[in-house]
This record gives sequence, C-alpha cells and structure tokens, in this order.
Amino acid sequence: MSNGGGVVSSSTHLLDLLEEPIPGVGTYDDFHTIDWVREKCKDRERHRKINSKKKESAWEFTKSLYDAWSGWLVVTLTGLASGALAGVIDIAADWMNDLKEGVCLSAMWFNHEQCCWGSNETTFAERDKCPQWNSWAELILGQAEGPGSYIMNYFMYTFWALSFAFLAVCLVKVFAPYACGSGIPEIKTILSGFIIRGYLGKWTLMIKTITLVLAVASGLSLGKEGPLVHVACCCGNIFSYLFPKYSKNEAKKREVLSAASAAGVSVAFGAPIGGVLFSLEEVSYYFPLKTLWRSFFAALVAAFVLRSINPFGNSRLLSTRFGKYPVLEVITVAAITAIVAFPNPYTRQNTSELIKELFTDCGPLESSQLCQYRSQMNGTRAYSDVSSQPSTPGVYSAMWQLCLALIFKIVMTIFTFGLKVPSGLFIPSMAIGAIAGRIVGIAVEQLAYYHHDWFLFKEWCEVGADCITPGLYAMVGAAACLGGVTRMTVSLVVIVFELTGGLEYIVPLMAAVMTSKWVGDAFGREGIYEAHIRLNGYPFLDAKEEFTHTTLAREVMRPRRSDPPLAVLTQDDLTVEELQTIISETSYNGFPVIVSKESQRLVGFALRRDITIAIENARRKQEGIMLNSRVYFTQHAPTLPADSPRPLKLRSILDMSPFTVTDHTPMEIVVDIFRKLGLRQCLVTHNGRLLGIITKKDILRHMAQMANQDPESIMFN
Amino acid sequence: MSNGGGVVSSSTHLLDLLEEPIPGVGTYDDFHTIDWVREKCKDRERHRKINSKKKESAWEFTKSLYDAWSGWLVVTLTGLASGALAGVIDIAADWMNDLKEGVCLSAMWFNHEQCCWGSNETTFAERDKCPQWNSWAELILGQAEGPGSYIMNYFMYTFWALSFAFLAVCLVKVFAPYACGSGIPEIKTILSGFIIRGYLGKWTLMIKTITLVLAVASGLSLGKEGPLVHVACCCGNIFSYLFPKYSKNEAKKREVLSAASAAGVSVAFGAPIGGVLFSLEEVSYYFPLKTLWRSFFAALVAAFVLRSINPFGNSRLLSTRFGKYPVLEVITVAAITAIVAFPNPYTRQNTSELIKELFTDCGPLESSQLCQYRSQMNGTRAYSDVSSQPSTPGVYSAMWQLCLALIFKIVMTIFTFGLKVPSGLFIPSMAIGAIAGRIVGIAVEQLAYYHHDWFLFKEWCEVGADCITPGLYAMVGAAACLGGVTRMTVSLVVIVFELTGGLEYIVPLMAAVMTSKWVGDAFGREGIYEAHIRLNGYPFLDAKEEFTHTTLAREVMRPRRSDPPLAVLTQDDLTVEELQTIISETSYNGFPVIVSKESQRLVGFALRRDITIAIENARRKQEGIMLNSRVYFTQHAPTLPADSPRPLKLRSILDMSPFTVTDHTPMEIVVDIFRKLGLRQCLVTHNGRLLGIITKKDILRHMAQMANQDPESIMFN
Repeated sequence: MSNGGGVVSSSTHLLDLLEEPIPGVGTYDDFHTIDWVREKCKDRERHRKINSKKKESAWEFTKSLYDAWSGWLVVTLTGLASGALAGVIDIAADWMNDLKEGVCLSAMWFNHEQCCWGSNETTFAERDKCPQWNSWAELILGQAEGPGSYIMNYFMYTFWALSFAFLAVCLVKVFAPYACGSGIPEIKTILSGFIIRGYLGKWTLMIKTITLVLAVASGLSLGKEGPLVHVACCCGNIFSYLFPKYSKNEAKKREVLSAASAAGVSVAFGAPIGGVLFSLEEVSYYFPLKTLWRSFFAALVAAFVLRSINPFGNSRLLSTRFGKYPVLEVITVAAITAIVAFPNPYTRQNTSELIKELFTDCGPLESSQLCQYRSQMNGTRAYSDVSSQPSTPGVYSAMWQLCLALIFKIVMTIFTFGLKVPSGLFIPSMAIGAIAGRIVGIAVEQLAYYHHDWFLFKEWCEVGADCITPGLYAMVGAAACLGGVTRMTVSLVVIVFELTGGLEYIVPLMAAVMTSKWVGDAFGREGIYEAHIRLNGYPFLDAKEEFTHTTLAREVMRPRRSDPPLAVLTQDDLTVEELQTIISETSYNGFPVIVSKESQRLVGFALRRDITIAIENARRKQEGIMLNSRVYFTQHAPTLPADSPRPLKLRSILDMSPFTVTDHTPMEIVVDIFRKLGLRQCLVTHNGRLLGIITKKDILRHMAQMANQDPESIMFN
Repeated sequence: MSNGGGVVSSSTHLLDLLEEPIPGVGTYDDFHTIDWVREKCKDRERHRKINSKKKESAWEFTKSLYDAWSGWLVVTLTGLASGALAGVIDIAADWMNDLKEGVCLSAMWFNHEQCCWGSNETTFAERDKCPQWNSWAELILGQAEGPGSYIMNYFMYTFWALSFAFLAVCLVKVFAPYACGSGIPEIKTILSGFIIRGYLGKWTLMIKTITLVLAVASGLSLGKEGPLVHVACCCGNIFSYLFPKYSKNEAKKREVLSAASAAGVSVAFGAPIGGVLFSLEEVSYYFPLKTLWRSFFAALVAAFVLRSINPFGNSRLLSTRFGKYPVLEVITVAAITAIVAFPNPYTRQNTSELIKELFTDCGPLESSQLCQYRSQMNGTRAYSDVSSQPSTPGVYSAMWQLCLALIFKIVMTIFTFGLKVPSGLFIPSMAIGAIAGRIVGIAVEQLAYYHHDWFLFKEWCEVGADCITPGLYAMVGAAACLGGVTRMTVSLVVIVFELTGGLEYIVPLMAAVMTSKWVGDAFGREGIYEAHIRLNGYPFLDAKEEFTHTTLAREVMRPRRSDPPLAVLTQDDLTVEELQTIISETSYNGFPVIVSKESQRLVGFALRRDITIAIENARRKQEGIMLNSRVYFTQHAPTLPADSPRPLKLRSILDMSPFTVTDHTPMEIVVDIFRKLGLRQCLVTHNGRLLGIITKKDILRHMAQMANQDPESIMFN
C-alpha cells in the first residue's frame, strides 16, 4: 500500500491553495454551477484562520467577533431594507392606483382613502366620497355625474393605465431586462447553485422596485408578492457585499439569500412564519438549521418594519412569455385590461382589496355590494325562522358581476403572466380562487335558505343561525387555486392562516390544498416555477422529484461507446504545449488527472478555468516557463534532463479529493449524491480504474431523456 | 479501460439480490446502525416492482393504490392513536392527581373540577369547593377544618403519592425498562439510523402509558410532554407493522416515526405547527418534504382527536440517573416531593395549571392569590393616578411562596430527571422559567408603582394604564428556560406562540430564546438531549454541530500505522475455510473485496452478517459446498482444476457500489458525506488503490478525541 509519504500534519492541498493564491482560481463563470463542497471547505478554512488568529491581539479578537456576528447583521439589514422597500412600494402603488381615478386637491400626495379621512362631511357608509377628492371628470369637465363624466373617467383611467404600463416596460427593456417576471424560478435556480451575474444586482433592484409600482398601478392582472421576494433577495445580495465572508463565498451567500426570500414573503403577506416555511419548502436548496433561525429573524424584522411604515397596509395583488414585441404586448394587454376592467366594480378595484372583501362575511356594518341582500333583510332578520337570507335582485347582480370578473381574471392572468414587466402570480391566483369560492358559497347559502329541510342542511344548520359562511368558501378557494398553481403545501396553509388568523380554518384549508395538489399532480407533477425553470433550460436538479429509473452510472457517464476517449491529463509527463492543445481542442469544464495512461489510476481533478488562469499567471510571473516546460501535478518535480526548461507545478489547483462512484452504482444513488452534496461532477471508476465522468448536466439530460423530453433543453453548465 | 462486459440492461447487483433472496440478508443486528443508501435503494426497487406489475390486473392495480396510500393511512392511524392516548392520559392523570386530595362521593370517576360543575351551591369565586367533593379528612375524620384534618390530608397526600410512584417504578423495572425517562434522546438516535429493538414496541407503549399516568399523578417534578413523543413514536412503529412498505424498510419506517414525533408534540402542547417544526428542528435526521407534509397531517389529526376527547384539557407537566437502586430512589424523591410540596399552594397544584396561572394577567375576575393585591385595590382603581397597583400583604406572601416554589422546583427537577419512571423536562423547565419571570414581573410592576416618575417608566407608562404585564414576563421566562435546556429555537417560539395565541408576543419570545441559547452555548453547545445521547454512548452523528478540524481521511481511517494490515477479501481465490478464518479472527462488520493482493484495486464491499448468513444458507441448501470450495465474487466462476469441489458464488451479497474517498479528502467533507447520505462506512483509496476504511464509529471517536473527550465513550456500531 502506498501511503503517499507518511502522515502529513494538516490538509496539504488546501494549504497549498492558500499559500500560493493565484488570483481568479476558485471563482466561477457566468451561467455555470458552483461546487458546494469546495465552497464550504473554503469557508471552514477561512473560519479556522480567524479562530487561530483571534488570540493574537485585541484587534484580531474584535475582527473575529465581527465575523461571527456578520451573519446576523446582514439578515437584519436585509430585513430592514425589504420591509422599508415593501412599505414604499405599497404606498406608491396605492397612490398611483388612485391617480387613475382622480386626485386629492387639498393634498396631492394623499391617496383616495387618506384624502377622505380628514373630511368631516363623510359618513361611514360613504367613506369613499368626500369633497376633497376630485375625479378627473370633476376636474376637467366640472361635473361628477352623467354619461359625459363617465366617459371622461373611463378615458382617463385607460390613459393612466397605458402610461404606467408603457413606462414600466420601457424601463425594464432599457435598464434591467432581469427585472421582468416574478423572479422566483431564477431565484430557485440561483439558490440551487447557479450563477446569473446581475440578476440580484443594484440595477435590477432599482428598476424592479420602480417598475413594480408602475405595473401594479397600471391595473394589469398581476401581483407584487413574487417580485417582492426578488427585491428582498437583491437586498440580501447587495448587503452581502459588505461582508467578505458572504461576498467571496457563493455557498454562504446563498444562506443569506434563503433568509432574504423568507423576508420577502414575510412582507408580501405579513406572514413571517409562512415566509420561513416558503423559503424552506419552495425556494431553498441548502437549508441548514442556522439558516432557518436567521430566516425567521429576517422575516420578523421585515414584517416589523413594514408594519411601522404602512400600518394599514397588507394590500396585495399577476404575467406568459411571447417575447418578440415586449412593449407592444404590454400596451395591448394593459389596454384590454383597462377597457374591460373599468365597468365592473370587482375588476376595477385593487385585487387585494377584492380578496379581502371576498373573505369577509357579511355583517350589519358591511357596505359591500355582496352583502346588500343581507342588509336589506336586516330588519326582518329576528323574525326569520330560516337558516340564511333570501336573495334579492342585489345578490343576482353581484353574482353576475362575480362570474364575469372570474372569466376576465382567468383570461387576463394567463395573458399577463410572462409580460416583460415585474409580475407575480400569488394574488391573481388567489383572486380567481376566492371569486370561484365565493360564488359557490353564495350558491350553497341560497340553497340552504330555500331547502333548509334537506337532510344535509337539517343536520348542520340550526334554525336562525348562520350555517353557511361564504367568506370561508372564498378562503378555501383561494388556497386551493394557489396550491394548484404552485404546489406549495404546508407553507401555503400557514400563509393563509397567518393572513386570516383563525386556527379553526386550518382543517378546511389543508383539505383544499391537498385536494388541489393531488388533482394538479394527476396532470403533471410540476408547479409553475418548476415549469418555468424547465422552459428556460436552467440546470436545476429538483430535490423533490424522485428518480425512479434503474439505469447505472456507466450508462449515463461520458464518453459513450461512440465518443472519442475521455480527455485526461497525466500527472507528470505533459508539456505546457500539450496541455494547451488538450484545453483548446475540448470544451469540457475540467479534466481528471491520472497516474499514467497505462494504469488509469485516478489522482485528482483539475478545472479548465483554473488551469488557464494558472498557465497565464505562470507565464506572467515565473521565469523560464516555455511551451516545452513539463507540467506536473505531483508533490515533487519529476527528474528531467539537464537542458529542459523550468517545469510548471500545478498541484495547487489540483482537487485531490474528487468524488468517485463505481460504474455499477445505480443512478438513483448518483442523483442523491449530486443533490445532497451539491456536486458539479463525479468521476466513474471500475475496479479502481478511471472509466468516465458524470456532470450535473449529464444527469439532467439523462432525466429529460427518461421522461421522454428533449435532452437538449438543458442549456447551461 | 475494462468495461466489465458491455452495457447490461439494468441494475445487475440489485437484481441478483432479488433473484436469489437469502433470508436474513439485508437485515440488521440490535444496536447497529442502518445503511440509509441501501434501504432507500431497496424501497425504490420495491416501488418499481409494484409499478411494473400494476398494469397486469385489477387486483395488482388495487394493491398499487393501497401501497401509494399506505403512507397517509399509517400517519392517520398514528395521529388518531396518539390523540386518543394523550386524551386518556390527561383524564386519568387529572383524576388520580385529585385522588391524592379526596374523592367525589356522588360520582367516583369525576375529578375535583368535574365533581363541582354539577353543583348549584358553588359560586364562581369558590368554584373548587362543593359538598359533593370530600377531602380525605372529611371522609375519615368527618371534619373539614382544624389541624387534625390538615395532618390527615397531608398524610393521605403523601401516602397516595408514594403508592403511585412505587407502582410506576416497579412496573417499569419488571415489564419494560425502556419505558423510563423522556425517550427523546433515544428517539433522536433511532431516527438517525440506530437499531434499538423493543424501544418502540407494544410493551413499552403499554407500560409507558400506565406509568406515565402514575408518575404524573404522584406529583414528582416531571412532565408528560417528552414521554408523549415516545408514546406517539411507539404508535407509529406499531402501525408501520401493518404495512410491509414500512415494516421491512428501516429508512421508510423512520419517515413514519418523524411524523409520529410531530403528532406527539402536537398533543403534548396542542401545537400542531410547533410539533412539525419540533420534529424538523430537534428530532428528525432525514426529513424529506413529503415527511414534512405528513407530519403536519399527523399532528393535526392528533390535535383534533385530543380536543374531541378532552376539550378542556391542554394541561401540561416534568426526570437524573443514579441507577443502582431505582425503586428506593423513586420512593425517596417522591416522599420528599410530597412532603415539601403539600404546604405551598404553588408546588401542590398541577404544574401545568401553575404555568397557566403564571401566564395569566390579573383581571377583575381573577381569583388567583397572585392577583389579590389587585382585587383589593379594585374599588379605588378608577381614582388611582398611578401606573400600577401598590402591594398589599397578599403580594408579599405570594412573592415569598413563589421564591420558595422556585427553589423547590429547581432542586426537585434536577433530582427527578433521570429517575427510572417516564419523565419529561418540558413542563418543569417552563415552570421554573415562568416562576422566575413572574417574580421579576411583579418586582418591576411594584417598581413602576413606587417610582413612576423614573425616566424608564415615564416614557412607557401612560398615567392610569397597565404598562407592566407580569404574565408576559412569565411567558418570556418559560421560553428562555426551556430554550436554555433544549436549545430549541424556531419550534420553541412557535410552540409558545400556539400555546398563548398572541402574534404580538413573538418578538419578546424570540429575543428571550435567542439570548438563552447564546448564554447556554457559551457554556457548552450541547442541549440536554445531545448530552444524554453522549452519556449513553449512542453513535449519533449530530447534523447541527460543525466539524472544524483540518484532519484528512488518512489520519482517521483504519488500519493505523501500528495496526495489522486491513482485512480484505480477494474476488476469486479464497476458499470457504479461509473466508471463515478471516471472519472468526476479526470483529469487523464488513470487508472490502479487491481484485488481488498485488493490485489492491477495489471491487466492492461485503457485510460480515451477510457472508455468515450466505455460507450457512449454502451449506444447508446447496450440495457440494465444502471447506475447500472456492469462493468467488465475480460474475463468472474462475477456472478450477477438474477435481475441485463446487465453488460458492457470493456476488449477490456484494455491494458493487461502495462509497470511496481519497486519502487526501479533508475529514470535514467525509463527515458531511456521512451525515447527508447516512453512511455506515466508507473506503479510502490512494491513486486508485485501497488504503483503508472509515466507519461511523471511527468518525465519532475521532470527533470525541478532537474535543478532548474519551473516544471509548462511543459504545455501539
């Protein structure tokens, strides 16, 4: 047994790496996958260095304390910033949304509701009418009623909607193309270890914040929840640049991003615990317990800040990809939305207010049109011996409008999702579900009223008591619809529970979410975000999907039977020229290093990027490195003839602990290893000899093939 | 490159395993660790078989449906059973607890509270006094007041407490020794992949349920929360025997146990979401998202059943290890507890009621002694211009009693935890924290009363308003104390939040839990359960603790420098006799199989238990297997001389995809692989040659050594 030279006191190859740091070695190209194992090793090395230094001086000790607390600091800052931005977005979107209808002459910066708060002339029932608030017809035509003013209001509403939509799509197109969409599929991919430079940068943040306000205010059928997660992740990424611990380590940075996504959901819904579970269930890939706790903290800070900025907030608000004429598409959809939405009160109002109204049961103080049939019956209520209220013409017109709103929402949401503006799917899905639920709820309520002797109602409805609560039907519908779209489970129930605050609703909500998940899974197991990831060809290895095929590693590895042999490097008999030829003739991201062509025994793995950087660096700094210089990856230089040029030592860039599996390993185990350890590649051996290599992309291609999909749809490395 | 014989259509070694199933191969010995990777492969193989068969007939299709739904069925049954058992335990413990003080003559099976519900003569203030309820002094001496009756009640209280404790310890000692303690450290170890036969069996369940009632009723300073988790896990284990999918697969069984532990916490505290997070954060090891969802479901079912059985329940309760004279110890501690507890109302009452009282703020209807000083002031309240209430003699006596109760609880809890009876730590810890918190709360309240002009109080306390809520101090104290003991974080906050139901308390609770975790971590990073696992020497590889040393795989692997060479098997030149000699001369659990002693190239890994079973099986069934029969692990039999006996093929028990790492792999990566993939052992190679082996026990020993602990404390394999 060769024991390599006795027991060496500590991690030689890591120390080598640190002793001779070549700038650029250990970084990644854009649209490449990170190596989680290497990143985590780098972080532990950094941590050990700080720990060993901290006893040297008070300054080093302070630095170590700062380092230990920097994780908490960065999530606190992220929480503060996300909360503040969400508050600003809420307020600005509200104001601009009301601008479509009119202005507050006494104070231009007040929205409709704030404008009328100060008014003494307003009664509770007519709280949205006050002299300070002027509709466009009043301002321009000087009259508030009549067909002329209706047309003027209609025109101005459409004009503002189109202006906002136009401005939004232009800003996105010119300054930050990454700002469009909800961002959640890309964030999932980034958290799984993919590099997309600029996706979480300051430009994206700025443009997304501004255009989100514009897109929401334009009245398009889109929500701000998904984009708020993107905004929070941008904050997390930007703050992580303040701390080298996070900025220089792609794995540690992803811990901050997980916490940031929790903060994003927390501010989007005011649901901190739901936010943490959303980050855990839907978004995150690597989620250690420390991150759970920090996510919780970030979510709380963010919720707290949002509540202090916008205490009456908690309002909420959807996008399909055509792609060729983004501006024209946005304008067209915005125009249709504005023109069709204006006449129907359920589509004209803010979607989150609509949801709130649908969730609320009718009480005596409720002025909502949905409850008119109940208010009209109020006087006779006490004498009524029936379970519920009879319908009046009011309920029929409300039902009709709801049905039209349902059709409108479904059609517009399908066309809106995928437009090149920031757009989320949460609120439109919930609105569709809530409308459908409320319609069913009212129908059942009427049924119970007219047929209160049916055995179903007889058993459940006591005489004179409200046994049907249409608001609960709306909640259940909203949860079911969102569950079907995203396939979220626990986090969805917790979010809706935190939104509505009733522990007693958990069981119906769970039943709804479970049923919709099962029905959805019967048509296909992908949620909308997974489908988007697939459409975009991102290299995302889903941790939820089980690999159930019986293939073996040797069937997936390359080289295949028809391929040229595996490109390998030998440990001590290549020249710089030969090495450069191998690199230029292939496009692989890395090369296995072996003892010799004859034995095929594996020594380690070297990355293409690192080799290129190391050769360039050596050319620049080390003298005597020529094209015929010998390259060696061993500890000691090979014995060379006297006249040969100075050899090039590349041991510092050699990964001496590459992952290997045997050719007989079932692919299910290989997939499991890739998922759990976050590998980029794995070498395949047979009886100790190197046979081939499997990369993450090979696995994704193989999975696509087994699912009868196009393997070429996986586009990145 | 040797490619082993071309592409074979499917997983050969697995099929081999299934084609020639040798009974006993693939099972585990007691006190051994399971191989997660192998178990999960077995389950996927089973799943594929069912899937391929299901199109054959309607019966097979029904079977596949049953198989798919069995996971939900088993968690539903577990939830139902845990909820029902928790309800029974609650009711029985309440009744027996009251039996120490007296009996309900009109209905013997009523506890004190139920007995007095029916009474018309009871006023709200004196709701615990009614003629139907007779104290022992009334029954035996015929008088309710006076020193004689006090002594008689005191005597009977002590008598019953000692009887219950004696019965409990005897039952545990004779029938089910595993029923003692909280069970959480063992469940954590079992969930991490350790086998302890009988720990979750029907005897343990039965005896634990009965003795838990007895131990709680005896008044010992112990809680029923931890033991309820053990009871729920027993239910999960027993129900999993109804489904071969779970009973025959140790990895799948642990999914059910994770869900069961969530159900246990759910019924213990009435906190289903907290239960799921507890299972995730504190107990579980392998926690796929499917388990999260099932845990949630189990927790809900259990909470629902408990509430239907015992709607007014939600009472809660709290055990040190001497070990030599268990009965005597229990009796002694029970006697001291009973004698010291009786005179002080705060120690005599049920601990969970005490906690409830401490959490409750004083309102006008509150009859608690803690609020007497407030009730006396009620009349003058409106005229008071101060922030809070002045103290009366009542508050001083309450404060004194609370201080004595605090000292008593701390001392008795230390001595009780570890007694050989079922005992939990949650409620006693919470009680200690709640008492301390309430004392501080009352002190601050008095301070605010007498010094309401201090700048601190001036700013926060409006005149005439209650600015200090001692109940909140008690809650925060309880959370902080429990957090310090268990080092739970998110799940603890969610449990206390679900117990108290106020979203506004989350921030103070989080701050308290975080502070106590940091202070605790400064003294040592282990929670009480981890400390117990270490004391018992279980092979538990903690997923939370980071491995921060720089050692390499070759420093940890065996054989060490001074050891004899690694025991290996060659693939085709051993005889049965030689194989048996190797097995009998070593005590290793498995042996690497290599091509030849010269090349040291690795082929696979064979487990000792499997080899022994396979040889015995061959002796019994196959004819012609002699001591000098050749043993071969290759696909085809080696060419042998004509007169040699029939060879023995052992390829079916060979694991052809053993995990390997290189000798240069840093131990931090090795530890990570063991944790994430749940390995039992891993082989170490250098340049393609086998060098040694690392087992889970080697890693735990190495970690103990690096932490300057005794490496021989790790006792099992």
